[in-house]
Amino acid sequence: MMKRYKLTISYDGTGFAGYQIQPAGRTVQGEIERCLSVMHKGGTVPVSASGRTDAGVHARGQVLHFDSSLAIEPKRWIKALNALLPADIRVLMAEEAESGFHSRFSAEGKEYVYKVNTSLQGDVFQRNYTCHFPYVINADLVQDAIPHFLGTHDFTSFCSARSEVEDKIRTITSLDLDIDGDDWTFTIRGNGFLYNMVRIIIGTLLEVGQGKIAPADIPVLLKAKDRTKTGKTAPAHGLYLNRVFYGQIEDKYS
Amino acid sequence: MMKRYKLTISYDGTGFAGYQIQPAGRTVQGEIERCLSVMHKGGTVPVSASGRTDAGVHARGQVLHFDSSLAIEPKRWIKALNALLPADIRVLMAEEAESGFHSRFSAEGKEYVYKVNTSLQGDVFQRNYTCHFPYVINADLVQDAIPHFLGTHDFTSFCSARSEVEDKIRTITSLDLDIDGDDWTFTIRGNGFLYNMVRIIIGTLLEVGQGKIAPADIPVLLKAKDRTKTGKTAPAHGLYLNRVFYGQIEDKYS
Repeated sequence: MMKRYKLTISYDGTGFAGYQIQPAGRTVQGEIERCLSVMHKGGTVPVSASGRTDAGVHARGQVLHFDSSLAIEPKRWIKALNALLPADIRVLMAEEAESGFHSRFSAEGKEYVYKVNTSLQGDVFQRNYTCHFPYVINADLVQDAIPHFLGTHDFTSFCSARSEVEDKIRTITSLDLDIDGDDWTFTIRGNGFLYNMVRIIIGTLLEVGQGKIAPADIPVLLKAKDRTKTGKTAPAHGLYLNRVFYGQIEDKYS
Repeated sequence: MMKRYKLTISYDGTGFAGYQIQPAGRTVQGEIERCLSVMHKGGTVPVSASGRTDAGVHARGQVLHFDSSLAIEPKRWIKALNALLPADIRVLMAEEAESGFHSRFSAEGKEYVYKVNTSLQGDVFQRNYTCHFPYVINADLVQDAIPHFLGTHDFTSFCSARSEVEDKIRTITSLDLDIDGDDWTFTIRGNGFLYNMVRIIIGTLLEVGQGKIAPADIPVLLKAKDRTKTGKTAPAHGLYLNRVFYGQIEDKYS
């Protein structure tokens, strides 16, 4: 009997051409489907994710689903897949899901983390995991700009011009900045994110911190619906898909 | 006029065949000397380190010295070298040193850190930077064993049998264990360390934690002067050369 399984996975995006299978280059989806195929004696097992991540972007809690007729307990899936997967992808959780569960369409929100290191020389151990930004940034200016992003807005100015999505209205429920010495960590939650949206918001906040954009200009930039007026897209390797939220609103942001 | 410079460097050991130049493989010393040679218009500039580190071992505070007739201010050395060095080596500090300063012979002590992750699945982001040890470890047993290492002992049982050093007496001044969830961090300081000494001490402490070796056996193992009785050598990629101490005793462990 076919059952639907939900997987929560973590990956180091450094060695991948992105999440989604493509003609050339190593992908997370490609590795997962290869391992599932081994477990299914060569059969094809398509996997769906909560969303794609770009080359270099990391995940601490990407969610996938797939269907299988193998009679394997959820916990055994973790062990079996991790034994086959390369070291830069780990399955953290496996659960049996309802047949109507869909990793993408059932998702009600996501949390991303973006890491920045402001030290002069950078940290060799963080070079693939944190955006090195060795410039003077004014934290007060950044904190003043943050509330302007909260709530429901048309984020046309904050998504890639290549985005083909028609509806660019999204809701950001929280955006927090934690500063620990030279390490800045942004945590952003919302009901959905457009292509490059987190990276453009962060890139813009960094320019706010440098004094290039005023905090009070954020509402103006949102209204302009013009990608050319906002900040640079922050590099992929500082970004982490941290969590995907499913289920009731009240649980969602626990 | 020739001046002596002291460099403090950090490197990610993952991509190196070790610190020291060797016939084949990428080395930290090789990269540094290559960059110094570029700065000296092809001239050879030999570099001395406080000690070698093995393949995979990291450094947050390795110390080197070299002599140069280039009239460059210490701070400019940092910028110039970092512009030439690969991203997995960073110069953190450059200072003019007295002519009698020697990175190895002037060193009065060193601090190493060893990181262990005890979670079942491990952390993809730490796979090259932390020893993954997904076993039950009793922290109380490890804490009971630690004091037996402190002070002055013959560490023959805790150094590689391949070591060619005659005098195996060393003094460990501190050995601390910090536990934060699944992350265990050992910090060890001493006046000097034999080949693989930190990794064998850690490997033995992990076996103590698993109940394979009793804490009270540590003095017996020290007295035995027999490498075959102690624990496995813990993997290289959990080890960091953190600091090298020079100067007065009172400053040394500040």
